[in-house]
Amino acid sequence: MSTDFRGVIPPVVTPLTETGEFDRDSYKRLIDKLVDAGVSGLFVLGSSGEVVFSTDARRREIIAAAVEFAAGRVPVMVGCIDTETLRVIEHAKVAQELGADAIVVTAPFYALQGLEEIERHFRMVKQAVDLPLFAYDIPVCVHTKLPGSLLVKLGTEGVLAGVKDSSGDDVAFRFLCQDNEKAGHPLTILTGHEVVVDGAYLSGADGCVPGLGNVDPVGYVKQWQAYQAGDWETVRSEQDRLAELMRIVFAPEDIQGFGAGVGSFKTALMVQGVFASNTMPAPVRTLEGETVDRIADILRATGVLD
Amino acid sequence: MSTDFRGVIPPVVTPLTETGEFDRDSYKRLIDKLVDAGVSGLFVLGSSGEVVFSTDARRREIIAAAVEFAAGRVPVMVGCIDTETLRVIEHAKVAQELGADAIVVTAPFYALQGLEEIERHFRMVKQAVDLPLFAYDIPVCVHTKLPGSLLVKLGTEGVLAGVKDSSGDDVAFRFLCQDNEKAGHPLTILTGHEVVVDGAYLSGADGCVPGLGNVDPVGYVKQWQAYQAGDWETVRSEQDRLAELMRIVFAPEDIQGFGAGVGSFKTALMVQGVFASNTMPAPVRTLEGETVDRIADILRATGVLD
Amino acid sequence: MSTDFRGVIPPVVTPLTETGEFDRDSYKRLIDKLVDAGVSGLFVLGSSGEVVFSTDARRREIIAAAVEFAAGRVPVMVGCIDTETLRVIEHAKVAQELGADAIVVTAPFYALQGLEEIERHFRMVKQAVDLPLFAYDIPVCVHTKLPGSLLVKLGTEGVLAGVKDSSGDDVAFRFLCQDNEKAGHPLTILTGHEVVVDGAYLSGADGCVPGLGNVDPVGYVKQWQAYQAGDWETVRSEQDRLAELMRIVFAPEDIQGFGAGVGSFKTALMVQGVFASNTMPAPVRTLEGETVDRIADILRATGVLD
Amino acid sequence: MSTDFRGVIPPVVTPLTETGEFDRDSYKRLIDKLVDAGVSGLFVLGSSGEVVFSTDARRREIIAAAVEFAAGRVPVMVGCIDTETLRVIEHAKVAQELGADAIVVTAPFYALQGLEEIERHFRMVKQAVDLPLFAYDIPVCVHTKLPGSLLVKLGTEGVLAGVKDSSGDDVAFRFLCQDNEKAGHPLTILTGHEVVVDGAYLSGADGCVPGLGNVDPVGYVKQWQAYQAGDWETVRSEQDRLAELMRIVFAPEDIQGFGAGVGSFKTALMVQGVFASNTMPAPVRTLEGETVDRIADILRATGVLD
Repeated sequence: MSTDFRGVIPPVVTPLTETGEFDRDSYKRLIDKLVDAGVSGLFVLGSSGEVVFSTDARRREIIAAAVEFAAGRVPVMVGCIDTETLRVIEHAKVAQELGADAIVVTAPFYALQGLEEIERHFRMVKQAVDLPLFAYDIPVCVHTKLPGSLLVKLGTEGVLAGVKDSSGDDVAFRFLCQDNEKAGHPLTILTGHEVVVDGAYLSGADGCVPGLGNVDPVGYVKQWQAYQAGDWETVRSEQDRLAELMRIVFAPEDIQGFGAGVGSFKTALMVQGVFASNTMPAPVRTLEGETVDRIADILRATGVLD
Repeated sequence: MSTDFRGVIPPVVTPLTETGEFDRDSYKRLIDKLVDAGVSGLFVLGSSGEVVFSTDARRREIIAAAVEFAAGRVPVMVGCIDTETLRVIEHAKVAQELGADAIVVTAPFYALQGLEEIERHFRMVKQAVDLPLFAYDIPVCVHTKLPGSLLVKLGTEGVLAGVKDSSGDDVAFRFLCQDNEKAGHPLTILTGHEVVVDGAYLSGADGCVPGLGNVDPVGYVKQWQAYQAGDWETVRSEQDRLAELMRIVFAPEDIQGFGAGVGSFKTALMVQGVFASNTMPAPVRTLEGETVDRIADILRATGVLD
Repeated sequence: MSTDFRGVIPPVVTPLTETGEFDRDSYKRLIDKLVDAGVSGLFVLGSSGEVVFSTDARRREIIAAAVEFAAGRVPVMVGCIDTETLRVIEHAKVAQELGADAIVVTAPFYALQGLEEIERHFRMVKQAVDLPLFAYDIPVCVHTKLPGSLLVKLGTEGVLAGVKDSSGDDVAFRFLCQDNEKAGHPLTILTGHEVVVDGAYLSGADGCVPGLGNVDPVGYVKQWQAYQAGDWETVRSEQDRLAELMRIVFAPEDIQGFGAGVGSFKTALMVQGVFASNTMPAPVRTLEGETVDRIADILRATGVLD
Repeated sequence: MSTDFRGVIPPVVTPLTETGEFDRDSYKRLIDKLVDAGVSGLFVLGSSGEVVFSTDARRREIIAAAVEFAAGRVPVMVGCIDTETLRVIEHAKVAQELGADAIVVTAPFYALQGLEEIERHFRMVKQAVDLPLFAYDIPVCVHTKLPGSLLVKLGTEGVLAGVKDSSGDDVAFRFLCQDNEKAGHPLTILTGHEVVVDGAYLSGADGCVPGLGNVDPVGYVKQWQAYQAGDWETVRSEQDRLAELMRIVFAPEDIQGFGAGVGSFKTALMVQGVFASNTMPAPVRTLEGETVDRIADILRATGVLD
């Protein structure tokens, strides 16, 4: 098992039963599907893995199941997402205890703070556990953009092993990749923007963490292999197809944000027969009716469903 | 003990020892000081009570101590602040178990959502516990502004008992107070903006939750009593003095946000002899040196310290 | 004629004919109505005076008419709103040539800049014309909040004569008033938030610039006089009535921002018989149908229309 | 002369003399340099062409000079940037009168408005002049993101000829290019983000409008030709070099935004001997001293200066 964390590492979506329990059977089917498609790792309890909706007990269930079902075939990265340092460290210790291969941590959120606190935060988390630490740059949730200079500094010092970039800032991403290269490539840099992975590869990304990869892992693995082979036309054409597939997130007409994004991924997995249900965590409404039909239509049109 | 939650209800600051443990002795001194000054209640585990920095075990310690030290003299409101509904409900049940008189809850945060989810969130929390529920409107932390129409609707239906407004939007606050009045005043509306409590009283606020009230509860109680007596000149002059006192938050020159605000409150309480230390929770730096001197100077200039 | 710019100074709304021409007759009626009500001055070409919608020729027409119709009874302040310094200076010179008594200028907008450029901007405008200069703090349009420290500094040096605050930040407003007082009151500070003028008076405002004052100048003048007399109950009750009247801006159901706000003011003036038409400048849609009826209903309910 | 507006179309920077006059000689040298390098067109009076800093008379000077110096070799696109429709139309008529080949227009700004007004705005501008109309999507200045669906609709109806995208939203850009393709490619889509032009080409961009293209037009033309030839390795390696060159905008240590960006472009052109001076428009400070040296060092390191 390689633990360089390069390649396609989907943020695994969490299946729930209709009554809101964790659905282990569906989770096993999803993980097998991803590993069989050739992904390089699994990222559980990310934003689309509904980490912030999950109680601590639920988080334990998910981590344990992911480690069990991955069964050493690919590494498991665990999102330890919480408001501040001491709470994050508690999650990180649980992840380590349950067998995580790496942890993924955002900047603190809710309380207003500056870069000094963010830097100290990552240093304290790293000191608390003996696992590779990835910084999760997701300003749309955390409301802070992690500066490239801080990331490369913490990479060079061995605090950070990598970055999961969901910043939506492709200009900063280009500079981050360049700065990381000049520093000797201490950071493994992964993009979370499933619609423009091809551009991220041009910028020098080491891999991707596409939420849509739950639905079509084969496509992202094919794209990754084309990138490794220097076959840019395939990188691009595969991206164009995946961008069409991504339009499932526009199928819901009256739900925004997480409910539309993760809701459509779960619905696609249900339509594909991987998930038994597309149930969403409270207080989010589950997609139904014509929205499900529209999603199935897009799956068919992009060759993901027969 | 009145539980109408009107008047001055400070968001109680949490004392830490120099090694970061919860300092019960200092907490008892602060609560006694506040109750002796005539406050109408205590709000523990608010934003300035460092709720998001506190582990679940720490939150339990603080709630238990607050209930013990309040000793039935004034009601204890408990902030149950977490990212999403199921996590909030866990905190709410702990608060109820430990003797809270009311809970205070924000909209969900981190994941992107709409008003539909927010409304369902408050309804689910209310159903889960048998305590008055206050909505905490603090967009600077939560990044959503709670619409007045939703608040009054949930008040009228008995879901919400009140609102703690830290929205910074005095125009919306005026309309909220008017709408609440027209609906029969179902909501108890408290302002969190310690510098313009007088304006909030003109708009019809039922009380205030001033972080600065930790430092000078007597001033805010005097102002409240003047408001009840229709003595606007005292309401105003007391506010002017308190606004001068609030300038302690500008004393730190190189720390932003929470570290400057709560840091200066803790430092003032240390200078006043109430807290044994002004230690801040990780990853925030503790104020020291000339900053402490500047804060002491302001306390003296505004008559809070001899 | 007093030119201390204290008291009620409405931002005068601009009447258009149905074909979009400037309607001098309606403008004369409005200005006479305002002066007769006892306002202390007129602010023309403010945000609600549709300055940014008006060509340079139209701006000249409006200034000339305002000076002519004011006829020395009250001073005329002119908004010189444009993107950058040299363009603003051109407008300022026109205003001076046409007889303005003061000019009102925002920070630069569109291009991204810092405080250094903003400070130099105000200094250059002041040097270019021999008129009192008011800073217009309106971050919702300009996307910069003017810091109180800069405003008081420029006031003390004689660059600024005053501030029109539409910042929506009542906490900063309190500190600005205090800092101005400590500096010897160099700035005349006016609030633009018509719904919370009472709170601004408690904070020490020298007057108000209420868009709603076009519709009910008598109310704002009555409130101002009560404030001068220390009669806070009248200040407050008048504000409550005016806040009810302000709900005309919520009457339009499918238009946002400027179209709803200024649209409802123009519609009210049409219903009152002051304006011949409520025509809006391109590309904004003019209010019609049931929206007009709802506005008339609110005018009647608040005693502004018989 | 091709007027399909595909390829490299730099937003031409405006040279000023040390006293702030328009420097025709330097402008001629720059335009000759750009045309000689093989650019497909010139975009004058864009954001980096200091359009919002320029008076109407200055704008005329710049347009006339650009048309004169281009001399029919390449088309001239003119930015008609102002707050609202009627003001924009005045600029558009001037541009047409002076010989522009296309105009570029943003959404209205300053006043708060919705999509309905934006759509009507573009329709009115198109009706007023007989020139190809490009929408300029630059939310960092205008504070509105133009939705792809509106752009494609206006393209299909013949209102818009194209889009200059400076939105910083590469995900939306991908979807825009796809939607445009499905609609029969009515819009010519150009990216303004000089650091990630390669990614934009993967997404299907028809060209670029790189501010940095003033400094190194040869590089961008070489990249464009490689893209046309399907040589992605050259597209990418040239982009990497240009991203290194772009670091001139980080050379200024105490100036932000426009002053740093356009300031560094002008300084590079001065160092290259194209501009006689790097003077900035008021109120922006001109770069000097070690900043100039740092910029020259970067030019040498990236092969742009010997």
